[in-house]
Amino acid sequence: MADALEQLKARARDLGQLMQLGMLLSWDQRTQMPPAGARGRGEHMAFIQRLAHDFLVDPEMGWLLDELEPRMSSLDPDGFDYGLIRLLKRSHDKEVKVPAELRGEMARAAAEGNMIWLKAKSTSDFQLFLPALERNIETRHRYVEALAPEGELYDALLDDFEPEMKTEDVTRIFAEIRDELIPMIAELREREIDDSFLTGDYPTDRQIPLLRDVIDTFGHRPDSWRIDPTEHPFAASAGRDDIRITTHWYPNNLDALFSTFHEYGHGLYQHQLPAEVEGTPVGGPASLGIHESQSRLWENLVGRSMPFWRFYYPRVQERFPEMLGNVDVEQFYAAVNKSQPSLIRIEADEVTYGMHVILRFELEQDIINGRVQLRDLPDVWGQKMHDYLGVDVPDDAHGVLQDMHWSTGLIGYFSTYLLGTVMSVQIWEKMQEDVGDLDELMERGEFTPLREWLGANIHAHGRKYPPQELMQKAVGSGIDAKPYLAYLKRKFGAAVAA
Amino acid sequence: MADALEQLKARARDLGQLMQLGMLLSWDQRTQMPPAGARGRGEHMAFIQRLAHDFLVDPEMGWLLDELEPRMSSLDPDGFDYGLIRLLKRSHDKEVKVPAELRGEMARAAAEGNMIWLKAKSTSDFQLFLPALERNIETRHRYVEALAPEGELYDALLDDFEPEMKTEDVTRIFAEIRDELIPMIAELREREIDDSFLTGDYPTDRQIPLLRDVIDTFGHRPDSWRIDPTEHPFAASAGRDDIRITTHWYPNNLDALFSTFHEYGHGLYQHQLPAEVEGTPVGGPASLGIHESQSRLWENLVGRSMPFWRFYYPRVQERFPEMLGNVDVEQFYAAVNKSQPSLIRIEADEVTYGMHVILRFELEQDIINGRVQLRDLPDVWGQKMHDYLGVDVPDDAHGVLQDMHWSTGLIGYFSTYLLGTVMSVQIWEKMQEDVGDLDELMERGEFTPLREWLGANIHAHGRKYPPQELMQKAVGSGIDAKPYLAYLKRKFGAAVAA
Repeated sequence: MADALEQLKARARDLGQLMQLGMLLSWDQRTQMPPAGARGRGEHMAFIQRLAHDFLVDPEMGWLLDELEPRMSSLDPDGFDYGLIRLLKRSHDKEVKVPAELRGEMARAAAEGNMIWLKAKSTSDFQLFLPALERNIETRHRYVEALAPEGELYDALLDDFEPEMKTEDVTRIFAEIRDELIPMIAELREREIDDSFLTGDYPTDRQIPLLRDVIDTFGHRPDSWRIDPTEHPFAASAGRDDIRITTHWYPNNLDALFSTFHEYGHGLYQHQLPAEVEGTPVGGPASLGIHESQSRLWENLVGRSMPFWRFYYPRVQERFPEMLGNVDVEQFYAAVNKSQPSLIRIEADEVTYGMHVILRFELEQDIINGRVQLRDLPDVWGQKMHDYLGVDVPDDAHGVLQDMHWSTGLIGYFSTYLLGTVMSVQIWEKMQEDVGDLDELMERGEFTPLREWLGANIHAHGRKYPPQELMQKAVGSGIDAKPYLAYLKRKFGAAVAA
Repeated sequence: MADALEQLKARARDLGQLMQLGMLLSWDQRTQMPPAGARGRGEHMAFIQRLAHDFLVDPEMGWLLDELEPRMSSLDPDGFDYGLIRLLKRSHDKEVKVPAELRGEMARAAAEGNMIWLKAKSTSDFQLFLPALERNIETRHRYVEALAPEGELYDALLDDFEPEMKTEDVTRIFAEIRDELIPMIAELREREIDDSFLTGDYPTDRQIPLLRDVIDTFGHRPDSWRIDPTEHPFAASAGRDDIRITTHWYPNNLDALFSTFHEYGHGLYQHQLPAEVEGTPVGGPASLGIHESQSRLWENLVGRSMPFWRFYYPRVQERFPEMLGNVDVEQFYAAVNKSQPSLIRIEADEVTYGMHVILRFELEQDIINGRVQLRDLPDVWGQKMHDYLGVDVPDDAHGVLQDMHWSTGLIGYFSTYLLGTVMSVQIWEKMQEDVGDLDELMERGEFTPLREWLGANIHAHGRKYPPQELMQKAVGSGIDAKPYLAYLKRKFGAAVAA
C-alpha cells in the first residue's frame, strides 16, 4: 500500500502544479497580459486543462485508486492520505466522463469569452457578447450531458465549485433568505442615512499606502504578498508564499478599502493552507463557498463592525481630513453600513447582496434547463432586478454584463458567494465561543487570535474534507442560514439607524 | 507518413506550450513574484522541465522520429516539416541521455540560485553566493557527463544555446577579435570625449513616455507589447502577440534608452516569428546568437548610428532641455559612442564589450575543465579585468557577481552575446545590399523596410535551420568576424574623435 500511496502522491503533486500554473496564468491574463495575447493564452489554458484531464483520467491513476480505496479503513480518516484518496477518487470518477476535447474547448471558449466580455461591457453591448456567451453555454450543456447527474442538471455544475452540494438544498436555503430579506430591504430603504462624505476627493496616492496598512494590520508576510490594480478585484496564489490580491482604487471613494478586506480573507486562506501537502489537490482550499466565507468574514464581520472601526477609523480619518475631519466614527460606521438597493452586485451592502446572488442562481437554473433564451437575458435581468430590489437597469453594463463569470462559462459559481456569506457567520460565532470576546480584540487591533483560529480550524484542513464535513468539524453543524439572518436582524434592526 | 507527421506535430505543439509557459514563469519571477515565492517557483520550473523532458524522451516520440527520418528526402528541405523532424530528432537524441531527475535538479538549483544571487549581489557577498554556485555547477558537470560530447566538454553546453557551434570555432573567432580589440581599446581610452551631460537630471517620468515612443517609432503593435521595469533588462514572450520587454530606468542617465533599443530587437524577433508554426519548437528563435544579432542590430547599428540620431535626437533633446539644450547632435553622438574600459558588461561600449564576453568565455572553460576553483573566481576575475581592460575591480558586485547567468547554471550562454554582435554586422551589410541606403532610411525615420527585411530573411525562418545554416541562407556566409572588426575600425577609427 505504501508504494501505491507514494505513486498516487507523486501524481497528485503534478495535478497541484497544474492548478497553481493555471491560477498564475489567469492572474497574469487579468493584470499583466497585453490584450492581443488572449488567443495564445486561450491555448495555454486549454493545454493545462488537457494535461490535468489526462493526468486525472490516466488508467494508472484509476488502478492506483482501485488498489487504495478498499484499504482506506486502515488510514486515519482525519489524515491527508485518506482525504487525498477520497478526493482523487471522486475527481477521477467525474473526469473520466468528460471528453478531453470538450475540456480544451471549454478552456478556449473561456479565454476568448473573457476578452469579448471586456469589450462588450465597456460599450454596454450585449449583442457583441451574445455569440461568446452562446459558445460558453453550449460547452457547459455538453459538459452537463457528459456528466449525466442523477438529480438536477444544475447539480453537475454546482458540484465543481461546492462539492457534494445539491441544487435543492441551495434552493431551500436561498428561499429562506429571500423571504427574510425582501421585507428587510423594503424597511431599510426608507431610512435616512447620510453617506455623502463617502463620495468625494480620495486621492489614490493616499489610498495605496492605506491598503498596505490594512494587510499589515490584519497580518501578513510582506515578502509573500502583493497588491495590484485590476478592473475587478480578485485574489490568486501560486503557492502559500506567493499571494496576489488585487483591488481597484477609485479617486472618489473608499471602495478599495472594503475590497481589500475581502481579498485579504481569500489571501490569508491560501497563505495558511497546510504546508505538508502544499501544491497537491488535498492541500488546496475546500471549496469556493468556504473560500468566500473567509473573505466575507474579513470584509463584513471584521471590516464593517463597530469595534473594528473604533480601532481603525482614526487612521483613515487622518489620511483624508478634508473629507472625514468632521465625521465621527458613529457617522462613518452608519454610512459604510447603509443599506440601499443598487445595480451592481460587488458594490451591494450586506443586506441587499443576497438578492443579487439569488437572482443569478435562478437565472442560471433557467439557462441550464432551457427555460430562458440567452438573447432574452437582458430583459429577464431587468425584470428580476425590478421585482427583487425595486431598481431599474439603465443599460447592460449595469445589468447582465456586470460580472465576468458567465463570459468564461462559470455557471454554478455565484451561489457560493451567498453560501460563503452564510457560513462566515457560523464560523464567526464558533470562533467567538472558542477565542473569547472578538469585539474587544478588534477594538484593540489584535488580529493574531483570529488568524490563528481560522488557520487551525479551517485553513489547516486544506481540502481533506468536503465543505459540509469541514463545517461539521469546524463549527459543529452544516450550513445553516439562521445565524446569518439573526446577525443581519441584530445589526440592521436598530443599531444602524442614525 | 502524413499520420506520423501529424502525431509529431501534436507532440511538438505540447513542447512549444511548455516553452512558452516556462518563459512566462521566468518573466513573472523577475518582474512580479513576491520574493518568498521563489521556492514554489523552483518547483514550477522543475515541473515544466520534467514534463518537457518526458515529452521529448517519450519512446513514442522516438518511434515517430525513426519512422519519419528516413522519409525526409521526400520533403522540401526548406519547409517547416523537414525542419521540425530534424530539430526534434536532434533534441530527442540529446535529451534521452539526460536523466529526468537531473533536469529537475537543474531547474530547482537555478530558481534557488537566482534568489540567492540577488541577495549576494546586493550586499556584494560572494561567500553567500558560493554554495548556490557550487550546486549549479555541480549539476552542469553531471549534465556534461551525461551527454559525453565527442570533442570538448564545453561543446555540450555551448550547443544548448548555439546549436552545432563548437568550442574551437568560438575560440578561434574570439582570438581574432581579441587581437584587434586590445590595441584599439588602448588607443581609444586616450581620447578625450565630453560625455558629462549624459549623467545628471533625467527624470524617469519623462523617460517612460520616451521609451514608449522608441518602440512606436521602430514599429510595433501596441496591443501586443508591454514594457516593465526590472533590475536587469530582458525580453520575454508568451507568444507572437504577447511580447514583454523590460528595462531599468535610472533618474540620472539615459541608459534605459539604449537597453530599450536592445530589447526591442529581441521583441521584434519574437513578434515576427512564423505564424504558421507558432508555439512549436520549429516556430521559435534559431539560437541565442541569432537572437542577440537582432538586439545588437537595433541597439548599435541603428541606435548608436549618426543617421538615426540626426532623426531622433531632437525628440530626446526637447524632453531634457536642461541637460541637452546646449548639446548638438555631433556632441551627443560622440558621447554615446565614447569608448572607455569599465567594470560592467551591460554598460560597456561597443568596443570594450567584446572583452567582457571573452573573459567570461575563458573562465567558463576553466570552470568546466576544472582548471579553476569556484572560490577563487573573484581573484581570477579581478586579474583578467586588469589584464584585458586595465581596470581594477573594487568589489564582487562590480565583478563576478554582476551577471545573473551563472546563478542559474547558464554556462555557455555568454559567448552568444559576442557571436550575435559579430553576426549583426554581417546581417546589416546584407540588408544594406538588398534594401538600399539604410543611412538615408534611418535619417528619415523609416524603419518599416528594416523590420520587413529582418522579418523575411531571419525571423520568418523560425528555427527550421541550425544558426549557421540560417546565416548561409540569409547573408550568404557563416559567422565571420571580419565585417564586425572592419565596422569597428571604420566607426571608431577617426569619426568619433570630437
